[in-house]
Amino acid sequence: MSSHPHAFLDLISDDLKLVEAKMQAPNEVFQPLAGAIDLLLKSGGKRLRPATAMLVGKFFPNIDKERLVSLAAAIETLHTATLVHDDLVDGSLMRRGHPTLNATWSTGATVLAGDFVFARAAYFAAETDNVRVMRIFAQTLMTICEGELRQLYDLRNWDQPKEAYFRRIYGKTAALFAAATESAAVLGTDDEAVISAMRDYGYNLGMAFQIMDDILDFVGDEVVLGKPVGSDLRQGTVTLPVFHYLQAHPEAIQIMRAAGRGNGADEALNQLIRDIGRSPAIEATREDALAFVAAAKDALRIMPDNIYRQALADLADYVVRRSM
Amino acid sequence: MSSHPHAFLDLISDDLKLVEAKMQAPNEVFQPLAGAIDLLLKSGGKRLRPATAMLVGKFFPNIDKERLVSLAAAIETLHTATLVHDDLVDGSLMRRGHPTLNATWSTGATVLAGDFVFARAAYFAAETDNVRVMRIFAQTLMTICEGELRQLYDLRNWDQPKEAYFRRIYGKTAALFAAATESAAVLGTDDEAVISAMRDYGYNLGMAFQIMDDILDFVGDEVVLGKPVGSDLRQGTVTLPVFHYLQAHPEAIQIMRAAGRGNGADEALNQLIRDIGRSPAIEATREDALAFVAAAKDALRIMPDNIYRQALADLADYVVRRSM
Repeated sequence: MSSHPHAFLDLISDDLKLVEAKMQAPNEVFQPLAGAIDLLLKSGGKRLRPATAMLVGKFFPNIDKERLVSLAAAIETLHTATLVHDDLVDGSLMRRGHPTLNATWSTGATVLAGDFVFARAAYFAAETDNVRVMRIFAQTLMTICEGELRQLYDLRNWDQPKEAYFRRIYGKTAALFAAATESAAVLGTDDEAVISAMRDYGYNLGMAFQIMDDILDFVGDEVVLGKPVGSDLRQGTVTLPVFHYLQAHPEAIQIMRAAGRGNGADEALNQLIRDIGRSPAIEATREDALAFVAAAKDALRIMPDNIYRQALADLADYVVRRSM
Repeated sequence: MSSHPHAFLDLISDDLKLVEAKMQAPNEVFQPLAGAIDLLLKSGGKRLRPATAMLVGKFFPNIDKERLVSLAAAIETLHTATLVHDDLVDGSLMRRGHPTLNATWSTGATVLAGDFVFARAAYFAAETDNVRVMRIFAQTLMTICEGELRQLYDLRNWDQPKEAYFRRIYGKTAALFAAATESAAVLGTDDEAVISAMRDYGYNLGMAFQIMDDILDFVGDEVVLGKPVGSDLRQGTVTLPVFHYLQAHPEAIQIMRAAGRGNGADEALNQLIRDIGRSPAIEATREDALAFVAAAKDALRIMPDNIYRQALADLADYVVRRSM
């Protein structure tokens, strides 16, 4: 059926080129900043967020294509801006095989460059000429920042409830997917049931995506990940596989508490990370991700059964199938 | 005539209370973040930016008050967000007698808190329900960030042209004043000549304001300034008094170049800062500021001659009269 693993992207590959072109730094931008934007675009991923927006937009033949492209560019540019500041906050020096901005720029310059990219995202959002989209956009940015701050505060809080994890990944990932698909529907229709369903699709897709990311942190290929297995736990971030593992092995919390205190505690942590990766906690976590995938597909049922709905369903399957 | 030195604020003191109330952190915000917002509001200044927006709004009796208040809150909140990141970039620990956020928070938390405040500003801007205002808002944020980056790049560049200074203070200060007054006019009228004049007023007011700030850095009271006299030059930022001083004393550039290299170079810099503060360069710089004040008042001539126009003229006079 599909010519390659991302056939769902074929339907919108021309649209994504327009999005890509829009995101390029304009000539008049201060040169070092333009260079930074180019670097950030080159280190970008598969553009799944703009892809969801463009695919949802396909359901509405009368949608203003230019505004939809502006929306998709706003979403991906906002995502890029959050990565600039996240990499700074985490001290990450590489992303997808490219050096991060903070690897070569000072803290101050990195902060300001990230702010500029935020502003560009807001400008693209304004180009949708739709006030409701702009409200969704600003609200989503608040949710993302608040989520990142909660994550900082929850570091090494080993006793947090599982709800804290779900709230965190909503802020970190699902909120932006939800904003992408909801906003695309807002640009295409006045039907609130459809708008709400498209938001649900994006939300559930984003939750599944992040849970899968958190699985890959335990079972992924270090070369593909570009970082050591278990990085989240090493940094003190408790993810869903850990919650599942702790249910069966409550004593493991002592190893996490001891980590970083010397006396072989770090070797114990390495062993724990390997144990989690080989444990049934991984399959239990995947089940959780699959439940979100099912909910995402369920949200699509309100839409006509066409190639775009199939592509969105394929995309949902893909996020839990991908190896990275 | 005026009951106190800021009589121009009396006309809008009730409006500014609405702006202040809007800026308060809502209850549902993550508690540490709410605390940070409260601290930032307490360390706020005279709210001159929202004041200009509210005063311009007074010319238009049919303006939607709630949207105008949203605009004013967006402008001041954006200003606050830029200060959070500026203080981080500059390593400033105090602002207006209160500790800065970066004085007590980690770099990461400060970056994210600033991002959250940016997002709040964008949300207030969206509440104006006016797409043109939102475009101005996003464009202004880009201008501000690009200006701050240029300032970082221009540090210790002692040979820069005077135009670099004017471009910098446009980005740093005048762009936001211009956005405040232009946006208020956009909310009040379709008359492009009036909108353009109000933008000119804000631009010129902002330029005068920043030039005066740069004078005060040489002649202000250290207690009121909250920092040592000559801080800009010590940090390598070339301001207008320095350009004027160098015209009469080109040899002084050697002292700047040598600063920070030991062997009495820093004492020479201290002496230079005192010399500049007592030199005719200060008066020459004040003349430049007064020219911008005159241009600001000139821009007001298109408006009806009423108490609001008088208040805006008084405000322009005030920015070059203030001691801080």
